[in-house]
Amino acid sequence: MPFTIAEAQVTIVGLGLMGGSLAAALSTMGACRQVVGVARRRGTLATAQELRFIHKGTTDLQEGVRDADVVILATPVQDIIARISLIGPMLKPGCLLMDIGSTKRAICRAMEDLPAHVQPLGGHPMCGKETSGLTMAEPGLFRDKVFVLSPLPRTTQEALDLGRDLVHSIGARPLVLDAERHDRLVAVTSHLPYMLAVTLMRAAESFAQDDPLVWKLVASGFRDTSRLAGGDITMMRDIIATNRDQILRALRQAQDELAILARYLEEGDLNALEHALIAAHNRRLEVYR
Amino acid sequence: MPFTIAEAQVTIVGLGLMGGSLAAALSTMGACRQVVGVARRRGTLATAQELRFIHKGTTDLQEGVRDADVVILATPVQDIIARISLIGPMLKPGCLLMDIGSTKRAICRAMEDLPAHVQPLGGHPMCGKETSGLTMAEPGLFRDKVFVLSPLPRTTQEALDLGRDLVHSIGARPLVLDAERHDRLVAVTSHLPYMLAVTLMRAAESFAQDDPLVWKLVASGFRDTSRLAGGDITMMRDIIATNRDQILRALRQAQDELAILARYLEEGDLNALEHALIAAHNRRLEVYR
Repeated sequence: MPFTIAEAQVTIVGLGLMGGSLAAALSTMGACRQVVGVARRRGTLATAQELRFIHKGTTDLQEGVRDADVVILATPVQDIIARISLIGPMLKPGCLLMDIGSTKRAICRAMEDLPAHVQPLGGHPMCGKETSGLTMAEPGLFRDKVFVLSPLPRTTQEALDLGRDLVHSIGARPLVLDAERHDRLVAVTSHLPYMLAVTLMRAAESFAQDDPLVWKLVASGFRDTSRLAGGDITMMRDIIATNRDQILRALRQAQDELAILARYLEEGDLNALEHALIAAHNRRLEVYR
Repeated sequence: MPFTIAEAQVTIVGLGLMGGSLAAALSTMGACRQVVGVARRRGTLATAQELRFIHKGTTDLQEGVRDADVVILATPVQDIIARISLIGPMLKPGCLLMDIGSTKRAICRAMEDLPAHVQPLGGHPMCGKETSGLTMAEPGLFRDKVFVLSPLPRTTQEALDLGRDLVHSIGARPLVLDAERHDRLVAVTSHLPYMLAVTLMRAAESFAQDDPLVWKLVASGFRDTSRLAGGDITMMRDIIATNRDQILRALRQAQDELAILARYLEEGDLNALEHALIAAHNRRLEVYR
């Protein structure tokens, strides 16, 4: 295993928005010796090379990871899990196998079964965009963003340090969290917002049955609150399948909070309601200072 | 009453984000003969004049509206209602009194009691910004946005046409809706998104009691979905006080939808859930094409 990312050949499997941005960040900043891309389509590889996001690319997983010091799986969660079960024998001794999937428990569990010569490390950069695909990728996507690293019990300190080095090299801030805690937290910070956006779309859809003018009166507030409902379905399906218990827990909390707001409204307790609105207002300003 | 806005002296009462943007739009486009501003603070008037948003300004309501052909009340809803009860005797015969408050039933009810020499017309431009205040105002805020006009039974066709002319002159698209229907629709398109944003803040706050890292893991999805919770509290308080029944109705619908999503999760019916996510996804892309 190399001591720094600068000496490493990094192979990124999946060149969508996230994988493409990661390749772009590493290449643009000259952070590592070589960036190799693995994608299903030759067209994607050609685009990534034209954009100078990768030094070379291949559609063959085995060929792409053979000489890699670091491999990063950057596809939807279920695809990452499927690849983990196959990739072990393809990797050279000491290879660091990372991923940037949206949930961590199922992935880290799958990583436990990797052969002993591979160093596994879960990862999740806390950033994204409304749009998906390589053409929306940008090298600055990770700049100053939190990048969660979830080591397994078997992950060596050296491997974790190399992961940290990679995170720093793309301008992000590493945060070491076990997979369990990561999944519990993102259920609230990422998956609940998505479910509330879907809830808003469904409520509006229901009202639009009676009065189709609903869709004419949506303004910027509706647009922002519903934005996540337009996100990638495959990604969300995999997230839900691998974080169902925690998402349900977050949803239950939201149901409780919504019931409290509804009760204030029903009882006409506008003082209590205003108190709640002010608290939410102040916290929001504090978080997004 | 003048036949067109071009001939009119327009007085705008309240020079915050919305009133300021309205003054800016009218002045910048030379849409009317003169724009007069009424504000509580001299500093606001000085700024509005420096920015060339108004031709002249005063802190005295009576002085500001005396020669006006059109008066537009652009303060929070309860303040608009209070001013309607006072302003009638100050207005010259045939004056068009409009407002741009966020709810319409309470305002239009108050307008019914205006003296007969005044022409009342409710209004509500479907646009806004996260921030408030005159310094955030911009003349292009209304461009291509829906601008609801709510005439009263007593409003003449001539007055409604003048209102339409004003809306066109700032680049917006007039939509005539009675106050009842307006309030029912915006409960879903504006007030429910706000309540869901507050719900999200409250759920996160609750989880942060156990694990303060919640606030470190919020990314762009959380930011957008919670954005409205950072909005103006006075404005929201007035909206809630004057649209409580319809907001509660929208909240009940959201509770039903959230319960359906929670049930799919609990029962592990991920096919039904995916079906719901795809429907929301497709509608969102259709609405924001």
